[in-house]
Amino acid sequence: MKKVEQLYEGKAKKVYSTEDPNVVIVSYKDDATAFDGLKKGTITGKGAINNQMTNFLMQQLEKAGVPTHFVQELSERETAVKKVSIVPLEVIVRNISAGHFASNYGVKEGIVFDEPTIEFSYKNDDLHDPLINSYHAVALKLATWDEIALIKKYAFQVNDFLKKTLLECGVTLVDFKLEFGKTADGTIVLADEISPDTCRFWDAKTGEKLDKDRFRRDLGNVEGAYQEMARRLMGK
Amino acid sequence: MKKVEQLYEGKAKKVYSTEDPNVVIVSYKDDATAFDGLKKGTITGKGAINNQMTNFLMQQLEKAGVPTHFVQELSERETAVKKVSIVPLEVIVRNISAGHFASNYGVKEGIVFDEPTIEFSYKNDDLHDPLINSYHAVALKLATWDEIALIKKYAFQVNDFLKKTLLECGVTLVDFKLEFGKTADGTIVLADEISPDTCRFWDAKTGEKLDKDRFRRDLGNVEGAYQEMARRLMGK
Repeated sequence: MKKVEQLYEGKAKKVYSTEDPNVVIVSYKDDATAFDGLKKGTITGKGAINNQMTNFLMQQLEKAGVPTHFVQELSERETAVKKVSIVPLEVIVRNISAGHFASNYGVKEGIVFDEPTIEFSYKNDDLHDPLINSYHAVALKLATWDEIALIKKYAFQVNDFLKKTLLECGVTLVDFKLEFGKTADGTIVLADEISPDTCRFWDAKTGEKLDKDRFRRDLGNVEGAYQEMARRLMGK
Repeated sequence: MKKVEQLYEGKAKKVYSTEDPNVVIVSYKDDATAFDGLKKGTITGKGAINNQMTNFLMQQLEKAGVPTHFVQELSERETAVKKVSIVPLEVIVRNISAGHFASNYGVKEGIVFDEPTIEFSYKNDDLHDPLINSYHAVALKLATWDEIALIKKYAFQVNDFLKKTLLECGVTLVDFKLEFGKTADGTIVLADEISPDTCRFWDAKTGEKLDKDRFRRDLGNVEGAYQEMARRLMGK
């Protein structure tokens, strides 16, 4: 499979067309941004780790019943995926209070919820990805009620799988962000990535942060955290 | 029924205890605020209109099956209501895009939704009443799932009733904010007020604003709009 033309360059990935109109190639970059793009940097090796971790997890999620966009890993940083139109909702699942949730609602980080929460942000850079609920998403025709129900179901399935898988590696899953896409025939599939860029991982014993918060909050050893997560999860 | 002691003074109302521990007296003020308290003013006669309009509507809502805090109108500006602990969620129902919805989601005012939307804001002045969804409200123990289901049901019932009642007066109901309270025995009842302070009313023919947006946006004839709504709805 060969790249034909660059279709899109985002903050952390480039997307290329291929000779197959239903398949695109995603190429993961080492670029990192935070705070709505205000903070920029590089995390050496991140692209390769995020690519491989995403593929590793998506293949297992497929087996667990969650359809994904994954087609084939092409190289360390590149993967062929189904071409989708992204549903313009960032889907965030939380098990423990942290980040925006803690600051927006005036609570401390680390509160373990009785049951996981789910929320949507409207993917729109100009509007700074505002929080949006299901009623608003439907009113604005961003998704249908059926699509939202399916997305919620898949997101909680991902949470159940990830929580268990990570706990076996000594990692607590705090929260994560998913994106879903629609294939040419309208099927909803998990898209984007699952990585330390898009999840909060805390060492289950020490509470040490093993994710992009090390970059956001200048905690040091950013590359080390990504490598540690790759080692624990994939043994490499 | 007599006022014993002032319990609370809000932006638009004062609340007094009575000799009955289960009843308080609400006294409506002419004070008006907007934009999170940044804009302050007076709308002469507003307190009397809001008191009477709220009571007029709540008594009909009771008959339509929505329990409310209403007990007895005491005077032009004062009403005895059941003592409740307010559920810390502002409940907003929208039929047409306007206000924060339009600015937050980058759409114009006046889009008529296929079905009404509902949203919650966390009532917390320090946090500026942030938008919150049901999962978060439950996680933060602001309400239970059962309470939220009941509040949603009542809020849509209020919308159905108000939309119909207002249309008969030549007024389009754009959106409105409700608050609910819990009585001593845990019953959820509609509390607070239903008035041009808490609803958007547009003249059904001309689109003229007949609500607090005239104050927020310096449109003039603020008192006239409140009086016009009183006249159309209550014939006074």
